[in-house]
Amino acid sequence: MAYNVAPLAHLIEEFNRLPGTGKKTAERLAYHVISQGEEYAQEFSDAIMNAAKSIHRCPVCQNLIDGSLCPVCDDLRRDHSMICVVSDPRDVMAFERKHTFMGDYHVLHGLISPMDGIGPNELTIKSLLARLNNKEVKEVIMATNATVEGEATAMYISQLIKPLGIKVSRLAYGIPVGSSLEFADDVTLGRALDGRNEM
Amino acid sequence: MAYNVAPLAHLIEEFNRLPGTGKKTAERLAYHVISQGEEYAQEFSDAIMNAAKSIHRCPVCQNLIDGSLCPVCDDLRRDHSMICVVSDPRDVMAFERKHTFMGDYHVLHGLISPMDGIGPNELTIKSLLARLNNKEVKEVIMATNATVEGEATAMYISQLIKPLGIKVSRLAYGIPVGSSLEFADDVTLGRALDGRNEM
Repeated sequence: MAYNVAPLAHLIEEFNRLPGTGKKTAERLAYHVISQGEEYAQEFSDAIMNAAKSIHRCPVCQNLIDGSLCPVCDDLRRDHSMICVVSDPRDVMAFERKHTFMGDYHVLHGLISPMDGIGPNELTIKSLLARLNNKEVKEVIMATNATVEGEATAMYISQLIKPLGIKVSRLAYGIPVGSSLEFADDVTLGRALDGRNEM
Repeated sequence: MAYNVAPLAHLIEEFNRLPGTGKKTAERLAYHVISQGEEYAQEFSDAIMNAAKSIHRCPVCQNLIDGSLCPVCDDLRRDHSMICVVSDPRDVMAFERKHTFMGDYHVLHGLISPMDGIGPNELTIKSLLARLNNKEVKEVIMATNATVEGEATAMYISQLIKPLGIKVSRLAYGIPVGSSLEFADDVTLGRALDGRNEM
């Protein structure tokens, strides 16, 4: 006789559907949630529904927002002549944690990856180009990952933007701050040498 | 200006509270849930509430069940003279997957661990002893983990049961089936030697 508790099996399945969560982890998480009691479950469940219902994309920068105004696009103190193009809303959070960039963002929601069936039309490239036509944008910074997909996407978009007469730049490659040279891979070291600056 | 979307931050926090889920993973999971749309979120949220509301402990074996009858305790074909004592409902699932054990279970919901403030009173030891007084139980199998806490708990409970004149046994230690000797640790190898059987 298979021992099976339907609501538990269903919850395990839901956790199992999350990225990077295997069967064993899903079981552990489901048992944890049940063991915490109904109030905890209600909070968790409400947080999911609240986020799913209230969060949507900013019509301008495509980042995730919960109100009608995007805190970045509507901030008059920011420099709207620079757009930093990233693949994911988490990348915006990474930049904002550092408080070093004061321009606008544009979130692509993915990277061009033919292997996964993601072409340029699956990304928010069209709305990026629309922003460039309407506004006084002077520079677009391609801040996609330093991976094959990130490179290809940056290259593709830069070729669309250059004819518009707007400056396109790419994040610098080099040695990560705080790391030793001996652990740097050959490609990174080569790029760091190519991109050397006068002291 | 800190970029902060309240419902998203709240959902990340909820995921962060799950065991073994760090800040980065919590962010990844929260973005995943949001990106899947409202229907997916509703399913996930319902699964949590449904499990939390309907799942409770069997009054006899303390395992998690969703109906009024425990599928193990109420199964007349099972051997109710044997009780397999485990620490966690997942251990019951592990035994039931193999279909090798046809007795009853008793779930302790933890192991004695003074370091974590868990003493015998936090476990379901009292209800285990009550079962032994009321029923024709002939053998109790201690199937707790082969860890310090599992050993201590098995030892503690066995000393409570032995005076009742009931046989108490412990799962065998030895080489895991399918593994090579060279990878077995010294303690396991010693136990396997001690527990050798005639062929």
